[in-house]
Amino acid sequence: MAVPVWSVDPRTGNQREQVAVEATASDVDAAVRAAHAVRHTLADRGVRIALLRAAAEELTADGERLRATADAETALGQPRLTGELGRTTGQLLAFADEVADGGYLDVIIDHADASLTPPRPDLRRYKVPLGVVAVYSASNFPLAFSVPGGDTASALAAGCPVVIKAHPDHPATSELAGAALRRAAVRVGLPEEIVTVLHGFEAGVELVKHPLVSAAGFTGSVRGGRALFDAAAARPQPIPFHGELGSLNPVVVTERAAGERAAEIGSGLAGSMTMGVGQFCTKPGLVLAPAGEPGDELVASLGKQLAEVSPGVLLDGRMREAFLAGVDERTRLDGVRAPVAAGEGEGRTVAAGFLTVDGERLLAEGEHDLLLEECFGPITVVVRYADTEQLTALLTRFPGNLTATLHLGTDEAEEADGAAARLLAELTPLAGRVLVNGWPTGVAVTPAQHHGGPYPASTSGSTSVGATAIERWLRPVSYQSAPHALLPAELRDDNPLGVPRRVNGTREV
Amino acid sequence: MAVPVWSVDPRTGNQREQVAVEATASDVDAAVRAAHAVRHTLADRGVRIALLRAAAEELTADGERLRATADAETALGQPRLTGELGRTTGQLLAFADEVADGGYLDVIIDHADASLTPPRPDLRRYKVPLGVVAVYSASNFPLAFSVPGGDTASALAAGCPVVIKAHPDHPATSELAGAALRRAAVRVGLPEEIVTVLHGFEAGVELVKHPLVSAAGFTGSVRGGRALFDAAAARPQPIPFHGELGSLNPVVVTERAAGERAAEIGSGLAGSMTMGVGQFCTKPGLVLAPAGEPGDELVASLGKQLAEVSPGVLLDGRMREAFLAGVDERTRLDGVRAPVAAGEGEGRTVAAGFLTVDGERLLAEGEHDLLLEECFGPITVVVRYADTEQLTALLTRFPGNLTATLHLGTDEAEEADGAAARLLAELTPLAGRVLVNGWPTGVAVTPAQHHGGPYPASTSGSTSVGATAIERWLRPVSYQSAPHALLPAELRDDNPLGVPRRVNGTREV
Repeated sequence: MAVPVWSVDPRTGNQREQVAVEATASDVDAAVRAAHAVRHTLADRGVRIALLRAAAEELTADGERLRATADAETALGQPRLTGELGRTTGQLLAFADEVADGGYLDVIIDHADASLTPPRPDLRRYKVPLGVVAVYSASNFPLAFSVPGGDTASALAAGCPVVIKAHPDHPATSELAGAALRRAAVRVGLPEEIVTVLHGFEAGVELVKHPLVSAAGFTGSVRGGRALFDAAAARPQPIPFHGELGSLNPVVVTERAAGERAAEIGSGLAGSMTMGVGQFCTKPGLVLAPAGEPGDELVASLGKQLAEVSPGVLLDGRMREAFLAGVDERTRLDGVRAPVAAGEGEGRTVAAGFLTVDGERLLAEGEHDLLLEECFGPITVVVRYADTEQLTALLTRFPGNLTATLHLGTDEAEEADGAAARLLAELTPLAGRVLVNGWPTGVAVTPAQHHGGPYPASTSGSTSVGATAIERWLRPVSYQSAPHALLPAELRDDNPLGVPRRVNGTREV
Repeated sequence: MAVPVWSVDPRTGNQREQVAVEATASDVDAAVRAAHAVRHTLADRGVRIALLRAAAEELTADGERLRATADAETALGQPRLTGELGRTTGQLLAFADEVADGGYLDVIIDHADASLTPPRPDLRRYKVPLGVVAVYSASNFPLAFSVPGGDTASALAAGCPVVIKAHPDHPATSELAGAALRRAAVRVGLPEEIVTVLHGFEAGVELVKHPLVSAAGFTGSVRGGRALFDAAAARPQPIPFHGELGSLNPVVVTERAAGERAAEIGSGLAGSMTMGVGQFCTKPGLVLAPAGEPGDELVASLGKQLAEVSPGVLLDGRMREAFLAGVDERTRLDGVRAPVAAGEGEGRTVAAGFLTVDGERLLAEGEHDLLLEECFGPITVVVRYADTEQLTALLTRFPGNLTATLHLGTDEAEEADGAAARLLAELTPLAGRVLVNGWPTGVAVTPAQHHGGPYPASTSGSTSVGATAIERWLRPVSYQSAPHALLPAELRDDNPLGVPRRVNGTREV
């Protein structure tokens, strides 16, 4: 029996429409085989550049319908979704530029040298696409981390067809985006089988186990991501699984920073932690603020700002329940106070809030470790540290994160060898991105970005945002003594494509 | 009770001396904690360069004793071990040069740009060391893939302390090499805890599970490597496991190549497959030769050469038993012939040999799949293919490999769009290194080298030989809006270390 896939309005909880049916094991098999069969059509870099640009155009052309549908399914609102669509098309165009640049191929050429002991043969290395990539869409970015998002864009840029497991929170948006991508494929003369969108939990499990799937990208929960990671590792032939599972995104506020601008930091924190109803992967979920007056002022400012934030609708009813349960469980812990209580709002909304706790509660393993786990939604925990020594001890207790943030006083930033440098050094092992005097929400799409970090922020050392995200879908190959006429263009002496290369140790750009 | 670790002479099977005792779980814990505690001493790139160069010097200074001990434990012979020592010190020096070059840090800098939508913050990315690395030594290279080998050299170059599980086939060599590395550390002012050598199977299992171990490198069997890979993936916080597990290294000989130089190819094959008594990771274990006269001539030439090869001693008695059993099991398969029978030689030696089988036996899954598995030692399988169509079908049946080799006729190499190009394209998905008209044994240590490949050749996309092996022990970090005074030197605007970088999209070398 076909299992229907419904689009649901999170503002009302009502079903909007039946969008599709869940994919069966044989649907998954057919999609992967079809993608595998046409993978060679993506070998030409010119057609990949054209595809990525056409995809941006198709998404833009259907923008009004995409935004309206995404808003109806996610309650994220038109302004946010307008920005997200721009970000999504921007990512596609940025990867087209990376393909044109060619630096991601990491070409290294060593000419034969008979004078060496032992003699060196001619060796030429570049990177080739892995094959069919499974993409697992996130709930919280129905465009930028979903069907047409960074995983899809980077995989297509690398030359890999994608089979995408849609997120159940926005199936209608997923279908529209998938159709736009397939129209783009057809427009540039590619078979539409290079992109397939599938629905259903079981389909997702089948997908990661399929022998012709070569790699997977995932953004979601620790629980779901870890199960898929384990399945990828347990295959007869294990495959790379690039998963972004969860992040607390700790923020450290120094004594001097709090003394200098407690109100500003409290207000900035309120804005960052409630952005998108607290559903960003980079939401600051734990803040280390000093005990004492400046820290009190920060807490007061945060409370004042949060009291003015309107309740918001979460992405789905299950998340709302998990949020309310998570808040409740944390609030009940010994010594935890809730100056502004997060919880149920009117209708299906939730209200933002925050908790406070003394640092000593978190120094040793125990029930308070729950506070070191991400709680998805508009809540954060302010941990009051007694002194620098306690702060350092607390930092050793954190799991891996996407981001870690340091708020410094104006003078501290100037002291190259002082406490600020030590704090930055203590934060670096905790995260993939380390910020100073800013907020982690809002992830710039740019070559130097890194959106990943120690587990559980990522199951690999990779990033899902920024130019280097393409590296995930490639593997190196070296050709030894291959006749020049048989070499790919990127490896020929005359470098007809103008690719950056390292030749006999010298870089040519 | 302490379990003794004995050095054994494979030529006689006699114990030479007790070298050490097996490490207990608490020994492993102590070694990892000590390494972790001193990891920051490797942060300075100058001291790492000095360390790698001092290590090469210390190994060279103790070269006579190292070679004599290694020969007594492995029976590989002085000429081979002299070459291997040179290769080992060469690797250490090459990684010193890579550290000095700095390109491996993959620095990307994007300056802030307020004119963009959304505005771009200042982002600066480079790579930081992962932490303590576990190294699992190989049996077949007691220096170059063992204690002072490529995994150790690349990990130290990256800034990671190492805890090394010695291979039981050469414990005395391992101790000598470990002592040389520790002397080098002390000479350049580093704590010797940056390198520890441990013995014992259980110690190896404990090591990969230790919470403070951040990554592992392994060269060895599919069975042992897969068990450690599984343990690394099953940890509460999974770690990267870079394992080289096994490789068949298929060779394709075209009709025209066989027609042109059958005798030369047969003789080259005999040399490559018996080098080091067939114990190279890159031994050509399966050769696809055409049916018909030129192929017959190739087989005859191989047989003639092999009949002249003296029996050799394998690395240990267990390997000898496995080799004899493997040969026996393969020889019994329907349709398999043994023109020169591999098997027992005088004393503890084994004689080289080869098998032949018709291609049709390997077209479908069945008991003949055993021929697609590596058999460690001096044996190869010549598969006679009927025509190009059958050859293409056979190639789809191969597992992943370190290498794949193509022997072409002189004219074929010139035909850019012909059958040769198609064959090269069919071999590329099978291996990390693709050779034309050469032999895969002898892996050049050079920036463009890639020693890895699809599973089981490697459990990751990485290489264990060549400059890019350093990438395995690093992860990217981006600093956002960090004050200039707090940035590491590699990320400062004036680039005091002269590191290659990509700044605002432009490469600076």
